[in-house]
Amino acid sequence: MLIPNMNYANLKDSYLFYNISKKTEAYLKKNVLIQKTYRLGIGDVSLPLCSAVISALHSAVDDQSKKDSFMGYMPECGAPFLREAIAKHYEKRGVALSADEVFVSSGASDELGDILDLFDKSSSALVIEPAYPAYVDANIIAGREIVHYHASEEDSFAPYPDNNITADIIYICSPNNPTGAVYSRDKLKAWVDFANRNKSIILFDAAYEAFIEDEDIPHSIFEIEGANTCAIEICSLSKTAGFTGTRLGYTIIPKALERNGMRFNDMWVRNRTTKTNGISYIIQKGAAAVFTDEGQRQIKENIQVYKNNAKVLTDALDKIGIWYCGGKNAPYVWLKCPNDMSSWEFFDYLLENIQVIGTPGAGFGENGDGYFRFTTFGDTEDTKTAAQKLVELLK
Amino acid sequence: MLIPNMNYANLKDSYLFYNISKKTEAYLKKNVLIQKTYRLGIGDVSLPLCSAVISALHSAVDDQSKKDSFMGYMPECGAPFLREAIAKHYEKRGVALSADEVFVSSGASDELGDILDLFDKSSSALVIEPAYPAYVDANIIAGREIVHYHASEEDSFAPYPDNNITADIIYICSPNNPTGAVYSRDKLKAWVDFANRNKSIILFDAAYEAFIEDEDIPHSIFEIEGANTCAIEICSLSKTAGFTGTRLGYTIIPKALERNGMRFNDMWVRNRTTKTNGISYIIQKGAAAVFTDEGQRQIKENIQVYKNNAKVLTDALDKIGIWYCGGKNAPYVWLKCPNDMSSWEFFDYLLENIQVIGTPGAGFGENGDGYFRFTTFGDTEDTKTAAQKLVELLK
Repeated sequence: MLIPNMNYANLKDSYLFYNISKKTEAYLKKNVLIQKTYRLGIGDVSLPLCSAVISALHSAVDDQSKKDSFMGYMPECGAPFLREAIAKHYEKRGVALSADEVFVSSGASDELGDILDLFDKSSSALVIEPAYPAYVDANIIAGREIVHYHASEEDSFAPYPDNNITADIIYICSPNNPTGAVYSRDKLKAWVDFANRNKSIILFDAAYEAFIEDEDIPHSIFEIEGANTCAIEICSLSKTAGFTGTRLGYTIIPKALERNGMRFNDMWVRNRTTKTNGISYIIQKGAAAVFTDEGQRQIKENIQVYKNNAKVLTDALDKIGIWYCGGKNAPYVWLKCPNDMSSWEFFDYLLENIQVIGTPGAGFGENGDGYFRFTTFGDTEDTKTAAQKLVELLK
Repeated sequence: MLIPNMNYANLKDSYLFYNISKKTEAYLKKNVLIQKTYRLGIGDVSLPLCSAVISALHSAVDDQSKKDSFMGYMPECGAPFLREAIAKHYEKRGVALSADEVFVSSGASDELGDILDLFDKSSSALVIEPAYPAYVDANIIAGREIVHYHASEEDSFAPYPDNNITADIIYICSPNNPTGAVYSRDKLKAWVDFANRNKSIILFDAAYEAFIEDEDIPHSIFEIEGANTCAIEICSLSKTAGFTGTRLGYTIIPKALERNGMRFNDMWVRNRTTKTNGISYIIQKGAAAVFTDEGQRQIKENIQVYKNNAKVLTDALDKIGIWYCGGKNAPYVWLKCPNDMSSWEFFDYLLENIQVIGTPGAGFGENGDGYFRFTTFGDTEDTKTAAQKLVELLK
C-alpha cells in the first residue's frame, strides 16, 4: 500500500487570513450600515505594473503569435538574457556573480518550497520568529526538526546568532516579513560567520530589498564576506515591481557553495532540468524590463508611493506613542498592541471601532502575540484615513 | 554540518540531448558544405500560439496596466475561472469533476516533480520504460526504489500489469512519450484494478491527449471506472496548445482519493498554499481561451498540421517496411532501427547520410535501445524532405 507523506498530519491548521476574512465578514453582516473597511492586512501590492514592463509583456505576446519569433521550451534555469540582466544588477551594488549563479524562478515562495530538495531530511531548520509561516510549514512537510529562534523588541526583531545553538538550514529575511526589521552589515556578518563555522546554509529571503533606503543596510547577503560559502539568496519581483500576480523570482546559488563534496549549484541545475521546463518566456521578457534603466526608474516611483504610505502610518504611531519597527526600509510596520492587548484582541478592537484591518502578530509565531502588522501596500487614501482614525482612537 | 541530499549522487548523467547537439555540431564542423539539417529530435512545438490565446494574453497584460483591473496574488490552486473551464472541458467527455478537484500548475513537468511531495519516501515507483527520463530521476532525488517495467513490441509498447509485482506509485503516460503508444480502455482498466487492489496510486500523464483521434481511446484516466480512488492525472497545454514556452498545466486530484486516512486533495491544497503563490494571472487568462469554442477550433487546426507531419513520416516508414508505433493518436513515431543497428548507430547513420536528426531510443531507458523516436512537431517542409530522404536511403 502506498503510504502518504504523513508529515502533513503534523501541520497546524493555518487560519490566519481565513480568520481575518471570517471575522471581517461577520462584523459587516452584523453592522449593515458600515460600508467601508480599511485593509492594511494582506501584503499584496495595489499599483499596476509599470509601463516598461507592460510594453515588454505585449511585445513578448506578439513574439508568441508569429512563427519566426515564437519561443518554445525555455532553458530550465532561466533565459540567458534575464540571468545576465540580474547578474549585472548585482554587479552595480558590488556583488560579482556569473549569470549561471542566477536561477530564474516562478517566485520566492515557490522557490523557498522547492529549494529544500537540496538538503537531507536529517538537517534541522532554524526559523527566526516572528516569521513567514511557510518557512516552518515547508520543513514540517519535509519532516525536518525546526529550531524556533525568538526575535524580540530588545534586538529590534533582528537578533544576533546564539553560539550555544546549532542548526543546519538558517532562514534570514531582511527586510523582514512581518516585522519590517532590517539586519545591519554587522549582524549579517555574525550570521555568516556562524554558518561557516557550523557548516550551516543560510537561506536569505531578500524579497523586500528594494525598500531599503539606508545606504549601510545590505540588499544582498553576498555583500557580506564569506557568504559565498554558506548562503543561497532567494528574491522576487513581487514587491519590487508588483509581480505578485504576474510571478517571477530569482535565486542566487554561488558555485563556491558545497558540502560533503556536493556543489549546490550543480545540484540545482540537475533539479531544475528534472523537475521543470523553465519559466514562461512572456513573463521573463516582462521581468527583464524591470532591470533596464527606465524600468528601475519606474518601479522606484511605485515603491515611493508605498514608502509614503509607510510614513503616514509611522507618523500616526509616533503621535500616539506606540512602539513599532519597520516602515523605513521595509513595506511592513510592526507595532506593539497598546494596553497589553493580545494581537487578536487588538484586531477586533480596530475592526469594531475604526474598521481598520491589520494582521495579528500571533499568526507569525508564538512570540508574535501582542504585536500587529500593517502593510503599506494599500490604497493611499485608505491608508491616510486609517492613520487618522488610529490617532483619534488611540492617542 | 548540513548534509546535502546525497541522492543526487545516484543520478546518472543525462547526456541525451547534449550528445545529440554535440554530435550534430561536430558533424557540421567537419562537413562545411552541409548547410541544412532536418530536426525531428526534440519534442518542442513549432507553430505560434493561436489567435484566441494571443488576444486573451494581450487583454490580460492590459488588465495588469490599470489600477482597477490589476490582479495581485492569485489563489494558490488556480483561478476559479480556469479551474471551472477545465472542469467543464472534462464534463464534455463524460468525466464529472468539481472545480476544486482541478489544480492549475506551471506545466506537467513541474507538477510531475512537485507531486511526489505527497508520498512517503518508502514508497516505490513503477516506471514503464521506455519513458520520459524525469520519472526516474525525480524519484532518485527523493530516494525512492524504482521498479523498471519493460514495454516491448509484443505489447505494442503499452503493457498490461503483471500481477506478480507490486509498486506504490505507477506512472502511465498515454499517448506515450517516447513511443506514441496508446493504452486502450481495457488496458487502463486493468491498471486501475491493479492499483485499487494493491492500494497503489497511478500518476497518469495525459500531456498528449489532444492527439487522440480514435474514439475508443480514453483521453483521461477518469473515463475508467474506479480511477477516482487510485489516480492523479497530470496534463499540460504544452502540446495541446503550443504552451511549451508559455507554461501552463493542470492536475486532477479526486476528493475520493485517500490512503491511510489522508485525503490527497486536501494535502495538495495545503502543499500549494505553503509552497506556491499561484500561477501568473496573464498566463491563466491565455489558458482559459484554449477552452473556449473558438480556442478549441484553433488549436485543432495546429494539431492537424502536426498530424499531417505524422502521416508523412509513417507513410515513409510503411514504404520502407520498418516496424513502428505511434504517429496516429500521438505526436511521436517510434520505430525499430533497421539492420539491427543500435539507436546511436542509427542516429549517426541518419545524420551522416541524410542529415536527419532524431532521438535515440536508448535515451528513454535500457530497453529503448534499437529503437528511435521522431517527433512530428517540426517544420512541415522539413518533415516532408526528411521523409523523402529516409525512403531513398532505406528502401
